[in-house]
Amino acid sequence: MTLGETIKMGTFLGHALPGSFFYFMGLWWSTKYILKYACKKYKRSCYFNSKSSFYRIEILEGIIIISMALIGITAEQFVPGGPHLTLYDYKEGHWKRLTSWHHCTMYFFFGLVGVTNILSQIYRSLPGSLPKLMLSNAFFVEAFIFHNHTHGQDMLEVFVHQLLSMVILVTGILIFIDFMRSNIILALLHTSFLLLQGSWFWQIGFVLYPLNGGPAWESTDHNNMMFLTICFCWHYAASLTVIGLNFALVTWLVKSKLRRSCPTEVGLLTKAEREQESEEEL
Amino acid sequence: MTLGETIKMGTFLGHALPGSFFYFMGLWWSTKYILKYACKKYKRSCYFNSKSSFYRIEILEGIIIISMALIGITAEQFVPGGPHLTLYDYKEGHWKRLTSWHHCTMYFFFGLVGVTNILSQIYRSLPGSLPKLMLSNAFFVEAFIFHNHTHGQDMLEVFVHQLLSMVILVTGILIFIDFMRSNIILALLHTSFLLLQGSWFWQIGFVLYPLNGGPAWESTDHNNMMFLTICFCWHYAASLTVIGLNFALVTWLVKSKLRRSCPTEVGLLTKAEREQESEEEL
Amino acid sequence: MTLGETIKMGTFLGHALPGSFFYFMGLWWSTKYILKYACKKYKRSCYFNSKSSFYRIEILEGIIIISMALIGITAEQFVPGGPHLTLYDYKEGHWKRLTSWHHCTMYFFFGLVGVTNILSQIYRSLPGSLPKLMLSNAFFVEAFIFHNHTHGQDMLEVFVHQLLSMVILVTGILIFIDFMRSNIILALLHTSFLLLQGSWFWQIGFVLYPLNGGPAWESTDHNNMMFLTICFCWHYAASLTVIGLNFALVTWLVKSKLRRSCPTEVGLLTKAEREQESEEEL
Amino acid sequence: MTLGETIKMGTFLGHALPGSFFYFMGLWWSTKYILKYACKKYKRSCYFNSKSSFYRIEILEGIIIISMALIGITAEQFVPGGPHLTLYDYKEGHWKRLTSWHHCTMYFFFGLVGVTNILSQIYRSLPGSLPKLMLSNAFFVEAFIFHNHTHGQDMLEVFVHQLLSMVILVTGILIFIDFMRSNIILALLHTSFLLLQGSWFWQIGFVLYPLNGGPAWESTDHNNMMFLTICFCWHYAASLTVIGLNFALVTWLVKSKLRRSCPTEVGLLTKAEREQESEEEL
Repeated sequence: MTLGETIKMGTFLGHALPGSFFYFMGLWWSTKYILKYACKKYKRSCYFNSKSSFYRIEILEGIIIISMALIGITAEQFVPGGPHLTLYDYKEGHWKRLTSWHHCTMYFFFGLVGVTNILSQIYRSLPGSLPKLMLSNAFFVEAFIFHNHTHGQDMLEVFVHQLLSMVILVTGILIFIDFMRSNIILALLHTSFLLLQGSWFWQIGFVLYPLNGGPAWESTDHNNMMFLTICFCWHYAASLTVIGLNFALVTWLVKSKLRRSCPTEVGLLTKAEREQESEEEL
Repeated sequence: MTLGETIKMGTFLGHALPGSFFYFMGLWWSTKYILKYACKKYKRSCYFNSKSSFYRIEILEGIIIISMALIGITAEQFVPGGPHLTLYDYKEGHWKRLTSWHHCTMYFFFGLVGVTNILSQIYRSLPGSLPKLMLSNAFFVEAFIFHNHTHGQDMLEVFVHQLLSMVILVTGILIFIDFMRSNIILALLHTSFLLLQGSWFWQIGFVLYPLNGGPAWESTDHNNMMFLTICFCWHYAASLTVIGLNFALVTWLVKSKLRRSCPTEVGLLTKAEREQESEEEL
Repeated sequence: MTLGETIKMGTFLGHALPGSFFYFMGLWWSTKYILKYACKKYKRSCYFNSKSSFYRIEILEGIIIISMALIGITAEQFVPGGPHLTLYDYKEGHWKRLTSWHHCTMYFFFGLVGVTNILSQIYRSLPGSLPKLMLSNAFFVEAFIFHNHTHGQDMLEVFVHQLLSMVILVTGILIFIDFMRSNIILALLHTSFLLLQGSWFWQIGFVLYPLNGGPAWESTDHNNMMFLTICFCWHYAASLTVIGLNFALVTWLVKSKLRRSCPTEVGLLTKAEREQESEEEL
Repeated sequence: MTLGETIKMGTFLGHALPGSFFYFMGLWWSTKYILKYACKKYKRSCYFNSKSSFYRIEILEGIIIISMALIGITAEQFVPGGPHLTLYDYKEGHWKRLTSWHHCTMYFFFGLVGVTNILSQIYRSLPGSLPKLMLSNAFFVEAFIFHNHTHGQDMLEVFVHQLLSMVILVTGILIFIDFMRSNIILALLHTSFLLLQGSWFWQIGFVLYPLNGGPAWESTDHNNMMFLTICFCWHYAASLTVIGLNFALVTWLVKSKLRRSCPTEVGLLTKAEREQESEEEL
């Protein structure tokens, strides 16, 4: 591979890596929320719901998030052609690969979320809903970064990143609303936006740095924007479907598990109770 | 008719069809909400309010919405000059009628609303307010699509579609607020925006593809924008009037029906109760 | 006066008239809200608070609003150079004075507010908070109209109207929040924005159509924008001051009136009660 | 120093002064909120929490804010090259240093906050949450001013001021939400935005008027925007860290003070109580 191809490969991976991270976290959080919801709905203190197991899960989640952030920062810095921790090239008089620094800053704020997750489990004097706000915060920072990620670039590159910025902003807003007022549907909705963000990162990689070695898409063709608009919607439809299947799967698992352990006590709430339930805190 | 005229006819119908659908749904939903409100206000378990009849109505509503979505998708794809389910014309090397695909994607998300409507009636483990959120969601997707519907078009076409996008966005926001906190006036307000959306779709058809065979309106004349601005307001005034008349009609029907069946028991709540009432869940 | 001067005079009055209307309504509404608040705070059923007197006041308010709307529409249509109820000049092939039609549409929606005011007092089956929503609605429509009022105009004219549009949008949002959750401070805040709107209409008149016969301000000078920005803030400071003085005056009047009628019973609530009070419904 | 250097020094100080003021207030408010929260959490009527001491603190805060506003206005007006209280230079026919007048108007609205602070402590008939709304208001006005601060300037100057305007707008929104629904985390979040605003003012000074005598940064280089974007995020990370350290410090102080005065009674709430607590009013 020539150097140009190596860098191109690097920038493709630079989009594939966060894409995979967000997709994975979206899947995991949707599972966690559905588990909590299903456990509560069937009015059983199943073992996932017990305080001590959740304590351990939250700590583990924090460690995983911090690891992802560290992996991301390391990859961005030491990839071939990366900035290698220098910010300014004094000899040549220009900034060094600021896009990599943008990605690093994004990872850093997600690292903070992991730290807050762990701290708020250990130190009880911290307010309980702090990690949720920090998460919402990290998405707002990310949206801000990607909004300013493409100064002076082509129309196509600007467009795909603006779509990304939009979905991140919506995620941040949804988590913020969820922070003000917990609600299972809102929680699932924001995880679906996480999946969308994850798969869209991959899509950006394919559009701007095609793996088959061909050139990037024609950046001045308005029809490409038109297509990417619906393509974006299809990604969203796919992520909604994934969340739906996950919901069906987890609910079925919880139900069948409970049926085996104590078959007589499993009962559904009445419709009236159910509606009220859905408005409750998660 | 020449081919050009056929295509023009097609694009006119492409706007008239969703316009009619939205207008119809706006009328129906406003009727449903007013019925529920009037039944509750007169403190009578009238037959519309009974669980089983509402169960059937919701299922029926879901089926109708899915049918509309399927009709819309079919019409967009197989109209003369439509894309016939192909996305890219490899021979000529360009996208095939992406505007049709935009409309199809829009219909698809409304189809999802219908599916959710039916599923949430059948499976009780689904949260009760899910269909409302999916509806709000479908409008947000639609607003997004129409916002990106006119890349590289004339000022006039951009303007009428931006107005459309704005009214759809407001509808989505209103349904989202309604999802967080049910309220009869908000519900009626969002149906009035549905009527506005429906009639504006028609207006777009008349402006861009005049049926009398004349050319589209002059697209660079600022006065056309100025006129369409107030024309948009007049559409809104008309839709508010329709909702008002509907309110008067349905309330009168419910009252007169109740008077006939059990004339002594019909009584109005006092003013104080009334105000409190209007804040309650629908 | 020449015809040009007459038209200029007309357009000046076209801004002075709504300015005076909004200023007057802002003053009146702030007085009404403070009266309600003061009466409630001093825990006395003073005569303003009695149901029947408020019934009459609301009807009267409705009539005054409708009259203002009718006066405004008539003035806009039949001023020298006005459109005289025709929309399109078929002979010359252009729209007739669309800015006047814009103003008429604005007045029409405020007329609707007056009608709703009266209807919701007479017909008890209407939801109680409807007039507030219609008012918020009228401001949103007005903001939309003024946002599209200056297609193809100079930078200066665009700027002063965008400021106007912004203040109207904020008024609409504040009334909407007030509709969701009544609160005395929010109510006073939106009346202060009404005063701002009123005085800004006058300012626009003076900037674009100076009465001393001189030309309009230089429309390409960025410093004019800079000045109008702070000038706008000063108008706002003035309207906050007016509301503050009004608050002091009305509270003093209510207190002194009560002291005269039954001096022993007037007592202030404790601090704790007071804070809770301010969160309550108006 | 030449006159040019003096003016440059003046404009640097014009940014350093408000920056220091906002940073100081951010530090103080975060301390106050954490104190209140910690005192409440440990269920002890510590002396900071007593009515009379808080009464005195609020009055003092009002006086400090008014002093800052007066210092700011005086400095802006009488700095070398300042407008010296004249608005228009009739001889030369242009506005006099409107940027200074912008800053003065901003200070004036913060002065109003101080006045409201004092008035609402002295006169009990004023609604209790008024100062919070006035504060939110002052930030909205400031955001408006800085949004219009750079008409006709370079891309770089526009960009750094737009970032400033954004952070101020977010501060205003957060205080407004806090006004609607008190919450310790929201309160701390808005103080972190105050710190960000303070340090960003300093950054603007360094970017546009470098103290080492060098020229301002190259204003047409897109990479400078890219760097300032992440630089802005780093400022934010720093301000979050400061708030975190402040939280740790104040909580530790309150705990240790309580332990000394009455060691047996200090106990932490259980997890369940804690979570509920954090949702409560401050």
